Amino acid sequence: MSLPHVSSGEIVDIRPLDQRLKDAFSNALLRTERLEVMRLVLPAGKSFPEHHVDGESTIQCIEGVVELHAHGSIKPMRANQMVYLGPGVRHALVAQQDASVLVTILRNQQLPHEADDSAEGLGTV
Amino acid sequence: MSLPHVSSGEIVDIRPLDQRLKDAFSNALLRTERLEVMRLVLPAGKSFPEHHVDGESTIQCIEGVVELHAHGSIKPMRANQMVYLGPGVRHALVAQQDASVLVTILRNQQLPHEADDSAEGLGTV
Repeated sequence: MSLPHVSSGEIVDIRPLDQRLKDAFSNALLRTERLEVMRLVLPAGKSFPEHHVDGESTIQCIEGVVELHAHGSIKPMRANQMVYLGPGVRHALVAQQDASVLVTILRNQQLPHEADDSAEGLGTV
Repeated sequence: MSLPHVSSGEIVDIRPLDQRLKDAFSNALLRTERLEVMRLVLPAGKSFPEHHVDGESTIQCIEGVVELHAHGSIKPMRANQMVYLGPGVRHALVAQQDASVLVTILRNQQLPHEADDSAEGLGTV
């Protein structure tokens, strides 16, 4: 996988893209076994279709306006607003203005094939 | 505990405090078993002493300038910058200007007193 693995202590830029937004792509900012942070770029009118993630997540609006469709309602999110979504909550995002959002996902702690390794680690403590 | 438990889907304001910063207090924005998000308010000259958290964390500068002391170096963080810190990484924050930061902490899945249970549980897998 070509996803970035930001080092602990490395400073990451999450400024609004502003004029660069129309040419920007969504990108992963960091990914560890338990944590994933990405910036989604959503030009006006674009949407991120309904989906869910297994773990908890937060979505922070960095710029623009996105509609959050979740829990049977539609809420606009503007820059400097964030939302928490519980595990498995189905949701979609629809950009009302050129927008980018920071998505933080807590993965469930172990992938199934990793559970045994972890158990060994704990067993030696 | 009087910590807030934000509901899934509830929009939370994380705007810069600006003029309100000097009278503001650090506050928890959400807390679940695995996730904690708080805003730390650090007026110029104040520091958050060296400490560590067991789980992974991110720190996002919302406004002002804070020095991050971690991994043997000092790095300034400005608004719209964030940093990832691995589990147990000792760090401190020192505000160079009136600042507030958003701290996201992934708790280890179990609290310490539960670890033995967990090890047993995994051991039986």
